Amino acid sequence: MKFCNECGAQVQLRIPEGDNLPRHVCDACGAIHYQNPRLVVGCVPEYEDRILLCRRAIEPRRGYWTVPAGFMENGETLQEAAARESREEALADVRVGSLLSVVHVLHAEQVHVFFRATLAAAKYAAGAESLEVALVAASEIPWTEIAFPSTEFTLRRYLEDKAAGREPYHFTTIDRRLKRATGS
Amino acid sequence: MKFCNECGAQVQLRIPEGDNLPRHVCDACGAIHYQNPRLVVGCVPEYEDRILLCRRAIEPRRGYWTVPAGFMENGETLQEAAARESREEALADVRVGSLLSVVHVLHAEQVHVFFRATLAAAKYAAGAESLEVALVAASEIPWTEIAFPSTEFTLRRYLEDKAAGREPYHFTTIDRRLKRATGS
Repeated sequence: MKFCNECGAQVQLRIPEGDNLPRHVCDACGAIHYQNPRLVVGCVPEYEDRILLCRRAIEPRRGYWTVPAGFMENGETLQEAAARESREEALADVRVGSLLSVVHVLHAEQVHVFFRATLAAAKYAAGAESLEVALVAASEIPWTEIAFPSTEFTLRRYLEDKAAGREPYHFTTIDRRLKRATGS
Repeated sequence: MKFCNECGAQVQLRIPEGDNLPRHVCDACGAIHYQNPRLVVGCVPEYEDRILLCRRAIEPRRGYWTVPAGFMENGETLQEAAARESREEALADVRVGSLLSVVHVLHAEQVHVFFRATLAAAKYAAGAESLEVALVAASEIPWTEIAFPSTEFTLRRYLEDKAAGREPYHFTTIDRRLKRATGS
């Protein structure tokens, strides 16, 4: 962020009075621009013991497999976001179920939230952001071609829980931030 | 948003190619500025059957009671955010436990996430954003002076669950958006 999106003046990065973190501050209009983690929401859609996967048509990780997921929009719930992403990426109508995983992706400044889901019918096709969409058995999941660590974490917990006949939720943290040297 | 925070030019609100929602688009540098819900994270800290409440020293809802909560920062987990807010608002050291509630606050473009928590000791005091902090029994909760609907929802579920000896999570949605007339 270089300019104030309210008045167009240049912003400064400094700690405002009463705060303890650097923020982008506009000295022209007084606005303080906070930056917070974004929510990415998705689901693991199942149909008759198979899971719906999408092969990404867009960067990052074009050509790799994932479950339907994307940035949450204003005005929708997490469950609505998961269902919308399934419609957009896989042209699939899902019923969103229990909370499956919450992944703090610190380097990307994102929180990923995934739900269990069921497909209403074996009807699906590649949306604009997918190269292809497939219903795969657990044994067919292309583990070496999964797009993101949060997707792999989520799929593994999904299968373990299903085998155990339970539906708990799981938290984890992924941190690939560059470590800064602390010496002088 | 009126100006591009990358180049300072005026932005236009329109639907970009390949998208289906209006975005703030900069025709000067090509940036598309997405706006997404922000995460507010808090907890219900308990100590010997009493709950830690804070009376707000800041707007909105100055003078009303709430549990420690605030905007999640980049670089932290949800649990770390809940613990940090407890330190900042109540000078309290909490151990964050299970997920308690997720509240979609559609009119505010926020997702509120609350955890159960325990106080390490009966040590607390008003932080800069609190007028006072108190450990109260369930029967002493000032229900008519609770700051936000998400706080009330969360406290009620907390007490019900505690009475039932269970720790489930709860989703709900609060929508106070102005309804637009749809006639011509």
